[in-house]
Amino acid sequence: MTTSREVRLKSRPEGLPTAANFEIATVDLPAPDPGEVQVRNHYMSVDPYMRGRMYDRPSYSPPFQLGEAMQGHAVGEVIASNDPAFKVGDTVQSMFGWREAFNAQASAVQKLDTHGLPIQAFLGVAGMPGMTAYVGLLKIAALKEGDVVFVSAAAGAVGSVVCQIAKLKGHTVIGSAGGDEKVAFLKEIGVDHVIDYKKTSDLKAALREAAPKGIDVYFENVGGEHLEAAIDSARPFARFALCGMISQYNETGEPKGPSNIIQAVGKSLKLEGFIVSNSYDMLPAFLQDMSGWIASGQVKWKETVDEGIENAPGAFIKLFKGENLGKMLVKLS
Amino acid sequence: MTTSREVRLKSRPEGLPTAANFEIATVDLPAPDPGEVQVRNHYMSVDPYMRGRMYDRPSYSPPFQLGEAMQGHAVGEVIASNDPAFKVGDTVQSMFGWREAFNAQASAVQKLDTHGLPIQAFLGVAGMPGMTAYVGLLKIAALKEGDVVFVSAAAGAVGSVVCQIAKLKGHTVIGSAGGDEKVAFLKEIGVDHVIDYKKTSDLKAALREAAPKGIDVYFENVGGEHLEAAIDSARPFARFALCGMISQYNETGEPKGPSNIIQAVGKSLKLEGFIVSNSYDMLPAFLQDMSGWIASGQVKWKETVDEGIENAPGAFIKLFKGENLGKMLVKLS
Repeated sequence: MTTSREVRLKSRPEGLPTAANFEIATVDLPAPDPGEVQVRNHYMSVDPYMRGRMYDRPSYSPPFQLGEAMQGHAVGEVIASNDPAFKVGDTVQSMFGWREAFNAQASAVQKLDTHGLPIQAFLGVAGMPGMTAYVGLLKIAALKEGDVVFVSAAAGAVGSVVCQIAKLKGHTVIGSAGGDEKVAFLKEIGVDHVIDYKKTSDLKAALREAAPKGIDVYFENVGGEHLEAAIDSARPFARFALCGMISQYNETGEPKGPSNIIQAVGKSLKLEGFIVSNSYDMLPAFLQDMSGWIASGQVKWKETVDEGIENAPGAFIKLFKGENLGKMLVKLS
Repeated sequence: MTTSREVRLKSRPEGLPTAANFEIATVDLPAPDPGEVQVRNHYMSVDPYMRGRMYDRPSYSPPFQLGEAMQGHAVGEVIASNDPAFKVGDTVQSMFGWREAFNAQASAVQKLDTHGLPIQAFLGVAGMPGMTAYVGLLKIAALKEGDVVFVSAAAGAVGSVVCQIAKLKGHTVIGSAGGDEKVAFLKEIGVDHVIDYKKTSDLKAALREAAPKGIDVYFENVGGEHLEAAIDSARPFARFALCGMISQYNETGEPKGPSNIIQAVGKSLKLEGFIVSNSYDMLPAFLQDMSGWIASGQVKWKETVDEGIENAPGAFIKLFKGENLGKMLVKLS
């Protein structure tokens, strides 16, 4: 008998989540039934989008249910198999994060060919966040020669990949992030102009200075003042890939919308939201490109790793305080 | 010697323009020089976009200059010609509105084949506003089978054409307008659900009721609460053609942005601003389609006509008070 600890949503957060919104439970896992596998997770992912699933409202992902283990990306190892397609020791990825181990239908987990990368890279640069950057920049924003690219949350799991793809394709990149460590990382990966928004009282002015001729692409991870600054500096026909707006996820009042949205008319701007799961047709191209870029050293990444399932809620909360550099992970075994 | 009265911008409006921002001047027109024509305008257009040109700031159209005659679409008749391509009596259109008559290089006016329509139709349904509707709906919003279409300022020069193109292509159309006369016109042209926003305290609720399954296309002419309501009711992958935001043109403080813009991420919305002059390649298709639709009675239009150049500023101001039904025109001769 395997035991597993898991994180359940105890109550729906009001505003910024706190530890009290979560509870840790221990469950016993029987041997897998026919057609099932048993998996021990090595790493689980915490991602900003999970905040949306903590609200009880319809969205592209269904809400997490109170009293049940949450879901999310995880990578681990088969520890028991009752399905001919899997054997003990197989490395797999799944959506059964937020738990140390689990039983699942074999069809609900995927074998992972790591291409020599550390497995947790498939929760970050080579996984959903990396592919989000790839899809948003190349398909949604339709990056083209000569574009000046502005990226918010530029040192994060998604933003840092956006910056590097844009750089390796020869673009001028402006990245916004908060704090010396993030600024240093962005300079290390070649970002042309770094804005430390925590040290900036006037983000519009800072962006105008960084991009005196304006921007052609904005990769939106933050919302609020960042979106307004991007609209302000947008050149005609600029394209905005709206990936997320982390500044607003915990808003309890009415968020402030971009007061200058009217400029979208006169400048023929295109603002387009997207969800990476609608572009899975691009997965083979992404994996091929990304493995090449990593092998050649053109794409680097940072991880912030907390250990132990009991620290997963805290790791999640760090995302909204900007306390992670690069991909935020929880190491489980 | 011909004399002409013209409207000049006397001062830049703060907020809603007033009569005091304009002045009428009388000029003498000499006989046209070689290569020039002299034209008497029969009708001139007043359009909401002209408000933007009254600010002293860079935009897609340069600012009107203080003390000079303004510009805009006009239709008229050649009354003297010193160019072999034009003869007295030719019907022409030009951008020399806001004046009774003018001399211009022959290349700056275009002969107008009216296809049997009244000439002023080329300032409205068969002109720039009609083509704006056509481009915004068919190219920017990329109207496709089954779309539910929401149109604001639906009884206006642009909006009423949007509604009718969507209807003749078989779509469900929801139109918002203010006042009984506009509501009656929208019902007459077959709009499925009409929202009188002046009688509605909760526009979001009204749109949800009119479109219980949501909207796929929003044709944006108004901004503010209309944009928020459209985002609220948007179905996944809805497309917004951002044509104008008349509610904000005279805003003196900071306009309120759409507080729910974050939904653009989760619902994969596309919001795209456009200027019709970037799509002149569609002009032949527009003229062919529109002349057919008018001939078959599938597209109708209304005009609100004021007379005399001295009343042009007042006609312009009416646009922002919603006092026009359909295309606002000034008859000059």
